Amino acid sequence: MTDVEQDLSAGVGFIDGEFYPTSDVRISISDLGFLMSDCTHDAAHVWKGSFFRLDDHIDRFERSLARLNMNLPYNRAETVDIVIECVRRSGLRDSLVYLIATRGIPSDRRRDLRTCTNRFIAVAYPFLWYVQPEQMETGAQVVISSTVRIPPESVDPRIKNFNRLDFSRALFEAYDRGSEHPLLTDFEGNITEGRGFNVFALFGGKLVSPEKGVLDGMTRRTVMELCAETNIKAELANIKPDDLRSAEEVFLTSTAGGVMPVTKVDDELIGNGSPGLLTLRLKDLYWALHDNPKYATPIAYD
Amino acid sequence: MTDVEQDLSAGVGFIDGEFYPTSDVRISISDLGFLMSDCTHDAAHVWKGSFFRLDDHIDRFERSLARLNMNLPYNRAETVDIVIECVRRSGLRDSLVYLIATRGIPSDRRRDLRTCTNRFIAVAYPFLWYVQPEQMETGAQVVISSTVRIPPESVDPRIKNFNRLDFSRALFEAYDRGSEHPLLTDFEGNITEGRGFNVFALFGGKLVSPEKGVLDGMTRRTVMELCAETNIKAELANIKPDDLRSAEEVFLTSTAGGVMPVTKVDDELIGNGSPGLLTLRLKDLYWALHDNPKYATPIAYD
Repeated sequence: MTDVEQDLSAGVGFIDGEFYPTSDVRISISDLGFLMSDCTHDAAHVWKGSFFRLDDHIDRFERSLARLNMNLPYNRAETVDIVIECVRRSGLRDSLVYLIATRGIPSDRRRDLRTCTNRFIAVAYPFLWYVQPEQMETGAQVVISSTVRIPPESVDPRIKNFNRLDFSRALFEAYDRGSEHPLLTDFEGNITEGRGFNVFALFGGKLVSPEKGVLDGMTRRTVMELCAETNIKAELANIKPDDLRSAEEVFLTSTAGGVMPVTKVDDELIGNGSPGLLTLRLKDLYWALHDNPKYATPIAYD
Repeated sequence: MTDVEQDLSAGVGFIDGEFYPTSDVRISISDLGFLMSDCTHDAAHVWKGSFFRLDDHIDRFERSLARLNMNLPYNRAETVDIVIECVRRSGLRDSLVYLIATRGIPSDRRRDLRTCTNRFIAVAYPFLWYVQPEQMETGAQVVISSTVRIPPESVDPRIKNFNRLDFSRALFEAYDRGSEHPLLTDFEGNITEGRGFNVFALFGGKLVSPEKGVLDGMTRRTVMELCAETNIKAELANIKPDDLRSAEEVFLTSTAGGVMPVTKVDDELIGNGSPGLLTLRLKDLYWALHDNPKYATPIAYD
């Protein structure tokens, strides 16, 4: 088995009232969640047996649902129970957990979205890091893509969504340039985000993360809160490619990996080419925060 | 059973080497065709027991695959055989047939697209009309949406794709305005397309269909060819909302319904409020073309 086949058999998912090994969680191809990617999701994680900021993830998920005119077949408490049960059954102590809502199958032949019963899916995968393990030490290389991020006028990026063909195009462009991590710009040439992660850059002692056209990432939010608590200057603002390439430090944030150092943007080394001191400090603070009971929802494994 | 439940049990689909009733065709939620809508499709149709322009649909599907760096696990002849077999097994004489290619499941935890084996799915649904049957007689109402179509700089619209959250947003806006058929504009304010259909408008005796930011629809192409053969002036060019609202005739084109008259754009009646004469003529020519053996691939039903 490949690593991923092992992962899929290790995880547990829920769909249509039943729990399955993740490898057996399948959705009807007639669900508009597939046929028009009319769905939203949230990605939370479990670390050392506890969810991190689960309530905040559910809050954001509910905001996405409202923005899509969707309703789940379960109330909030039931939804939380299902999500926790996926992790409990999997036995995974470190897990990346997806909550997914799809439009469902219309009962009308012309696919009237109002005739759909929305579907809820949850899946617990083994935890994954968006950058390679060695890149957590050496820093990842990102490239600034020529593909423009799907703009907010088309799809609201605050609705965490799977309309990601822009990233697919950008990924192949990045592979050709020796990177696995493209960052997309908007039509004004501002940096936005990558597939599943936000970006931060340090300029003159102040951290900046793109303000517009991006997901309000949970790890991004956590980093902003950590900065506020520790008197590190940080703000949401526009970043141009030239600025990013000449930043003092750069890092990515994602539930799939936390705070991840970047040491090269396009062909430019960042700082001295090693992960920055502030990056490493925030990474430590981020993981230390997992011990704070305020953010933890422990799983009652068997 | 609802109409759609009947449709799903009447159809036949193919996935992972097996044929199933359409209601049982399911895809792993770990396929990036779902998790990032990294997939393409083509929609062909069978009318009175024969495919219409099947070769042209396969040609376009292969162009989409190439643009996405995808390869099917079957060669062209095998792919055609599978598609025909879905229809043959279903017994459907009038069918809307989807060919779908998904990125597949990566064998790499960081979801490197290059590690995926692409998946091929085919499904034969009962034929469906994108507008209601009575609207084929009276004409449909379209509304021009405030949602901007996902731009070509983000996703190439010639790759027939399911990144359709822009349409989802526009549909709810349209429902509120009493229509089921939103047309989206681009950032320059030009009309583009609707969910699964192109649009034509008649101005001073000349037909115009949007040139940029749209799918090269098979029915649109057929209409352009019919115009060339019958000396009807037609061109691909930009159309502004004000122009569309004051057009002499308007119609939609889609494999799911052919040539479909529009008699109202926003609150403006088109022409005298009845389907236009040229629209009806092209509709007749379109369906008559189905008897031309050049375009027909008959199914050998049992």
